[in-house]
Order: sequence, then C-alpha cells, then structure tokens
Amino acid sequence: MIKSIVLIGSGRVAHHLGHALYNQGLQLVQIVGRNSSTTAQLALELESVAVGLDNLQLMDIHADMYIIAVSDSAIAKVSSTLAQLLPDHALVVHTSGATPLSKIDRHFKYRGVFYPLQTFSRDQVVDFREVPICLDTASTGHHRAELERLAQSLSRYVVWLNEEQRAVLHLAAVFVNNFTNHLFGVASQILASKAINFSLLKPLIAETIRKLDNLPPPEAQTGPAVRNDQSTIEKHQELLQQIHPEFLDIYQLLTRSIQDLHSNDQNA
Amino acid sequence: MIKSIVLIGSGRVAHHLGHALYNQGLQLVQIVGRNSSTTAQLALELESVAVGLDNLQLMDIHADMYIIAVSDSAIAKVSSTLAQLLPDHALVVHTSGATPLSKIDRHFKYRGVFYPLQTFSRDQVVDFREVPICLDTASTGHHRAELERLAQSLSRYVVWLNEEQRAVLHLAAVFVNNFTNHLFGVASQILASKAINFSLLKPLIAETIRKLDNLPPPEAQTGPAVRNDQSTIEKHQELLQQIHPEFLDIYQLLTRSIQDLHSNDQNA
Repeated sequence: MIKSIVLIGSGRVAHHLGHALYNQGLQLVQIVGRNSSTTAQLALELESVAVGLDNLQLMDIHADMYIIAVSDSAIAKVSSTLAQLLPDHALVVHTSGATPLSKIDRHFKYRGVFYPLQTFSRDQVVDFREVPICLDTASTGHHRAELERLAQSLSRYVVWLNEEQRAVLHLAAVFVNNFTNHLFGVASQILASKAINFSLLKPLIAETIRKLDNLPPPEAQTGPAVRNDQSTIEKHQELLQQIHPEFLDIYQLLTRSIQDLHSNDQNA
Repeated sequence: MIKSIVLIGSGRVAHHLGHALYNQGLQLVQIVGRNSSTTAQLALELESVAVGLDNLQLMDIHADMYIIAVSDSAIAKVSSTLAQLLPDHALVVHTSGATPLSKIDRHFKYRGVFYPLQTFSRDQVVDFREVPICLDTASTGHHRAELERLAQSLSRYVVWLNEEQRAVLHLAAVFVNNFTNHLFGVASQILASKAINFSLLKPLIAETIRKLDNLPPPEAQTGPAVRNDQSTIEKHQELLQQIHPEFLDIYQLLTRSIQDLHSNDQNA
C-alpha cells in the first residue's frame, strides 16, 4: 500500500495534488522544486521537507511513490536524474495529460501516469473528489492495483486511459476549458465597449452548461448560425468591425463551423 | 398596471415567457401564432385562446400589452399588421435582442423591447427569476414604470439597455452560448474518436465556469497557448490532423488569439 510520497514540483498541480494527498493522510516525505519560495511554502503546508531541484542528489530518501509534477518539457530530464538515484523498482509517475508514459526513464519498471483532469489556480480551492484522475502504467500486477487504490482515495472519478486516449482527452480539454475561457474573455471585452457588466451573461453561461446534462451539444445549439439567420450574422459582423475587428475572424470561423456541422439537419 | 396580455408567437421564447407571465397571474387573453399545433398547445397550457397568425384581424381584443415574440425577420410585418388593428396608445413590445426598437411600427407611441437573455429549449424548464430581462422603450412616463414593474415580477435581473448596448449584449451572448456550445460539440466529437465519454469533461467545464466568480477570464486562462508551450501545440495539431482535420483551423485561430491577447503579459 502506498503510504509515503516524494512530490517533485511546486506549481499548481503539485500544490493541489499535494494537498489532496496530505488530506488523505499520505506522508509527503519531500517536496522537491526549482522555485525555492513556493517549494518551501508547500513543504510547510504539507509538513514536509523542501529540497531544491538543483540538489536532487539530496533526494536519496525512500518513498512508496515518486510523483513528477513539473512542466511537461522538464519531465524527461527530471526522470533521468531520478534514474541515477533510485532503484529500478521505484514507482515513478508523472501528472501530465500531454506527455507519453515513455518520457519517464526506462530504468524504472513501474512507470505510470497520474493525470488529474482539471484547471488549477493557485488561490482557488478545488474539491479533489470531483477531479477525474486518469491512470496509465506499463506494469501489471500489484503496482497497478495500488495506483488505482490511491487514485480512488482522492477522487470519485478514476479511469484507465491508454496513451492515445489521454492525448485525445487533453486536446478536448483545451477546447472546453482554454478556448471556452478565451471566448468568455472576448465577450467581456465586447461588453466593456458599451459599459455593460459581464455578470449579466452569467445566467446564460450557467444554462449553457446545465443543458449538457440533458442534451448532446449539437441538439442544444441555438443562435443565428444554426438557424442560418444571415441578417443577424451580418449585423453582428458590422458591429464587430466597429468595436473589435480583431475578433471578426473568430466569429466568422465558428459561425461557418456550426453551419457545416448542421448543414444536414432538417430541424435546425 | 399591466394585467392582460396578447402574446404573438408560439416558439421557444413565447413558450417560456408565456409560462412565466401565466405563473405570475397575468391573464393571457390570446396566443397568436403561425404554427397551429404549438399555438393551440400553448393556449391550452396558459388557459388562453389560440388565434392563427393569418387571422390576425380576429385579434381585435383589448389587452394592456402586446408581446411580439416571433422570429426577428417577422417582427416588422407583424407589427405593421397590428398597427391596422390597434389604437396608437397600445403598449407593443418585441422580445428580440438583435432587433431595433424602430422595427415596431411607428403608429405605436409606446413601443418597447422586453428581451429575456437566455437560451431556451422547448423541453427544458427555466427558472425565469434567473433570466435577465433587458428593457428599452421610446416612451417616458408611466408606461416605462409599468414595463419595469412587470419585468421585476418575473426576474431578479432587470436592466435598461439602449439600442447599441442591446446589440452588443446579443453579440456577446453568441460568443458565450452559441460558440461555447459548439466547442463542447467539437470536444465531444474528438473524444468519440477514441471512445471516451464526454461526461469525463464535465468537472472541468464546471470549474471553468466557477472560476468566473473569482477571476476575470484573462486571469483564469491556462493551457498551452497562454504559456506558449509550442511542443504541446504542435502535438495537438498533429493529432487533430489525424482524427478531425476540419477543426484544425479553429484550434489554430483560437490559440493565436489567446497568444495575441496575452503577448504583453509578464506572468502568463
């Protein structure tokens, strides 16, 4: 059973995952990070010991699991340094949706992925029970079961996804989170041009999400694009041209994409 | 005080607004619609009388307010027909966010707009208290106060917006509802290519919305675009090229737009 963990990273994922593990009674034996102030702070919060990423050789301590929660581009390098320090039976996972399992050094027999699918902000408390955890591992047997047991102690949603599935999920997450949030930002700039408060749109946004519980997105689609209301589409474009021409191409492309998707509907 | 209403239209807005008015004890004296079956059904639900839109001349009845809740392109024609039938002091409003007040025939001194800002589906119950109602009128005096009183009896959010503000709000609503919903549809197609259930994304979507309560959208922005993670962006594009090349231009345009918006950030 996994009881002790070394957490490498002090960014947003490390912060929230570390707290979730700590709250479940796991022992965080070391927090290893590049940024000495966030690493020290996180170690303090988790009753742990801070170690600089540049002093990784100090990290010769035993733990049941080593979690690499650093930026995607640093995973390979960190894991190959770890390979010099740890025995080959150490359980080493990364937390990235976009990084192959194979980026963890092949020295380790029990490589794994422990990917929490959520958008984390440092100051925003997250209920980890509601964060899907996507698992993968090259190994079979009891390491697999232990990884799953640990994930289930943190979250209600634990799924095993292979490499391809995880990559696709990460891509889809960009559309529903990053791009959606950007559209909110665009809307907020559009409103600001006429001194309208963005909060007026919040009930509409809430309903847009609530509909997902009952209808697949294509059936929930409304608006001028899907009903091919060319006169409104033209008025919107004229208005954008006046107030925020830099968003005209987004308007046109998404309108066209909606129309392409629904061009065979009888009932749009 | 407005007590009796003629409702023209039997579509989604007419349906939900009609029910909200009925639930507040307003008398719906007639429901006038083109589609005889939805009009008859709505009249039945609202203890009203159904009148065909082609038999508008039958609509010679008195009411305190006439609500034109038909498609945008039909508002001018319906209102000019009404102008032949009703006295010039009749209170006549339309419910469109995208239509100028002036599309209501100038015969009417008390033209107005009564625009509920929400996405309505026929089978989805809506809590009208949470639907912002945007008002406008050319007239001053007691008609203005009565319009506001009626709106406040239906909703917690009543705002007066002029022509330009309403147009801008309607445009912003397209971004946060129509376009966002389309992105959900794109994500769902991307996931379907590897047999992943869309519901796995729902906690992420919920958090994307929840962040709006604490952070302006630009500060909530995360992901490869804003952190300029070119390696992930390239992997995403290769993947899209394989599974859904028709969405590649959306990915590229929104990524670029996020980067343009944040290019001056120190802290992205």
